[in-house]
Amino acid sequence: MDMFERLSPAPRLLMGPGPINAYPRVLQAMSNQLIGQFDPQMTDYMNQTMALYRGIFQTNNEATVLIDGTARAGIEAVLVSLIEPGDKVLVPIFGRFGHLLKEIAERAGAQVIAFEVPWGTVVPESTIESAIKTHRPKLLALVQGDTSTTMLQPLAEVGEICHRHGVLFYSDVTASIVGNELKSDEWGLDAVSAGLQKCLGGPSGSAPITLSEKAVSLIRSRKHIEEGIRTDDHISGSNSRIASNYFDIGMVLDYWGSERLNHHTEASSMLYAARECAQLNLQEGLSKVIERHQRAGAAMSAGLTSMGLTLFGDQSHKMNNVVGVVIPSGIDGEALRVAMLTQFNIEIGTSFGPLHGKIWRIGTMGYNARLDTVLTTLVALEALLTQAGVPVNQGAAYPSALAEFSCSRHAVDGVNHTSQATATEEG
Amino acid sequence: MDMFERLSPAPRLLMGPGPINAYPRVLQAMSNQLIGQFDPQMTDYMNQTMALYRGIFQTNNEATVLIDGTARAGIEAVLVSLIEPGDKVLVPIFGRFGHLLKEIAERAGAQVIAFEVPWGTVVPESTIESAIKTHRPKLLALVQGDTSTTMLQPLAEVGEICHRHGVLFYSDVTASIVGNELKSDEWGLDAVSAGLQKCLGGPSGSAPITLSEKAVSLIRSRKHIEEGIRTDDHISGSNSRIASNYFDIGMVLDYWGSERLNHHTEASSMLYAARECAQLNLQEGLSKVIERHQRAGAAMSAGLTSMGLTLFGDQSHKMNNVVGVVIPSGIDGEALRVAMLTQFNIEIGTSFGPLHGKIWRIGTMGYNARLDTVLTTLVALEALLTQAGVPVNQGAAYPSALAEFSCSRHAVDGVNHTSQATATEEG
Repeated sequence: MDMFERLSPAPRLLMGPGPINAYPRVLQAMSNQLIGQFDPQMTDYMNQTMALYRGIFQTNNEATVLIDGTARAGIEAVLVSLIEPGDKVLVPIFGRFGHLLKEIAERAGAQVIAFEVPWGTVVPESTIESAIKTHRPKLLALVQGDTSTTMLQPLAEVGEICHRHGVLFYSDVTASIVGNELKSDEWGLDAVSAGLQKCLGGPSGSAPITLSEKAVSLIRSRKHIEEGIRTDDHISGSNSRIASNYFDIGMVLDYWGSERLNHHTEASSMLYAARECAQLNLQEGLSKVIERHQRAGAAMSAGLTSMGLTLFGDQSHKMNNVVGVVIPSGIDGEALRVAMLTQFNIEIGTSFGPLHGKIWRIGTMGYNARLDTVLTTLVALEALLTQAGVPVNQGAAYPSALAEFSCSRHAVDGVNHTSQATATEEG
Repeated sequence: MDMFERLSPAPRLLMGPGPINAYPRVLQAMSNQLIGQFDPQMTDYMNQTMALYRGIFQTNNEATVLIDGTARAGIEAVLVSLIEPGDKVLVPIFGRFGHLLKEIAERAGAQVIAFEVPWGTVVPESTIESAIKTHRPKLLALVQGDTSTTMLQPLAEVGEICHRHGVLFYSDVTASIVGNELKSDEWGLDAVSAGLQKCLGGPSGSAPITLSEKAVSLIRSRKHIEEGIRTDDHISGSNSRIASNYFDIGMVLDYWGSERLNHHTEASSMLYAARECAQLNLQEGLSKVIERHQRAGAAMSAGLTSMGLTLFGDQSHKMNNVVGVVIPSGIDGEALRVAMLTQFNIEIGTSFGPLHGKIWRIGTMGYNARLDTVLTTLVALEALLTQAGVPVNQGAAYPSALAEFSCSRHAVDGVNHTSQATATEEG
């Protein structure tokens, strides 16, 4: 007899800042049986996954792989592989995850120059350029979308600034990818890290990353091959060894590359999930996926506003896929979240740090970036707020969200499909 | 249209050193829909997983959690959290994974004292004690089962030696756990790390670990809470900060503990898998699972020997779950492996380092530690060796394996069911 009941997760509708419900096809992908890590079929799947994420990241970078861990593992792998002790790293902070980049960079031995803008705003490009001129960092580490504040940092001009000053440019796009535009090559990014559990529509536990040739060549200069599998043909690089073995991207690239030099044992089921997430999103088309996130996000915002609630932060720089709502005065925000979960099986998010207890965060991501999920969440919230005695505009959210979702201003231009086409040809 | 074909892994029988085929129930577990990371049901599943792995590790350690990454991530988390720069770490090496412990300890800043015994043997306890007396390390890091050589290092007496000399005792048991005895508490282990993809019968990508109170208190002295979620109530420890954020076990414990302080986003699908692996093994009963591995391993060895093949290494110290076979002279070991895969859909293992090209490694692990898999592998191997002109004893393997599997000498005594009982009560 089992010690505990068989797994039977409640049918939650996950409308928080992530994780969200995975696409059913992604869950099905993970139930496929395993194959050996050097089986030709497995290495084909790995190569396909590389090609698919080139499409997702809008890049032609050869070095596009998965780190076997959560999104945070992807961040740490990039930072610990790029930063040598003593390197200057500039970290503009506009929310919790900027603090995380700062902290991980510090632990990697960087001399971190950080500055913070008020939560609910983003960092002006001019401020970034001034800081670069003043501090001459080796690396700029910048979050694209920070779920803690719902803000979307503009990146399009930042790569050009970095290029002008010879600075490496890294962004963590975990919260924003495929819910908002990202053009890694066009925007001049040297390193990008992500996770599956937001708009990509998969579970946490696999972190896609991509690296420019410049970033790879820096990492190669720190190359090291471990004893036990090293042969005389292997030459180590001249620069300092990377402080982590697991996150030594040089070794990860040798494992994903033609030498197939054993490192970790690839997490096959998570690779199945990551591959399926990318297939689903590229099949729908990146511009359509982003447009769907725009529609769903705008509909949610419209519904909340119509109800009489106040949105948090600079709405012109909000991510499509998550919105902050000020908790109305006089009610217990946590009690309402619990009621949403227990009465409606709907999860909305709490908040961290300075926003804790002040806003809820409501996500419309991936599989859940749909009209029905938006409407359901709004009417449930309206019912509970009404019950709690909050004066909301009864009946306003539904038609308002519906109208916003259906309006025609949501087309997305300019998503580059080149990489996607390339990947198709390789298949 | 999808860019690549839908996932459709070939029906391989994975008889190498791991990964092996996962139990179907584990694959099914992963196809369950996600729930939020602080959903009461999710935190219940996390608590249950802690209790289940106390049973698997045979420990009462409160600090029994999953690291979100492959087995190697578990190793690095333990070492980087326990080792402060300059600490002396003793690493006796008897195969590839000893080299890995050495390398990871070095990257963590340790002063590593390593010595190596010939591959195919294990390290005498007396040698370990002498080295401890000479070098006075803070930590002993020792692999239990090293798939590179198939050897099983005796650990039962080592904890007492460490205790006598005030040395922390860590073992990586990824390759050996539930295929061979392990009694973490009775044997005096301070830290143990594992992975799912061997005898536990799951996919790679989640690393169960357990830590004694002594190990936890060392880690707590290095406590650090990241900015962005830190409050005035949080007090940092006085010792050096752990060099990794992702592998800072103090933070991981705060996430799994009652404070539920956010760190990474738990990889829910891998947690489902890890939980199911433990349930399946404890349901069968640890002593029965180990006995099944003994029977299957002994049957495989008997079949190979009867065929006229030579086994590699000290057979009195072999793991139950994997055997090394000397590749007969005059044949191409890789070509035969390819034929096993393409003709029979059976995968057997190649080898690393000094054994590369000299032995195959054949595993009988987890779901695949069965009579039918042993017999199928043996007769397929016999057919291909015969075809390749190797003089094998025709027809000898089948009856010999069958007889060995059925013989009565395989009962396992002394597996402690206390922890399992404890876990059941908590359920």
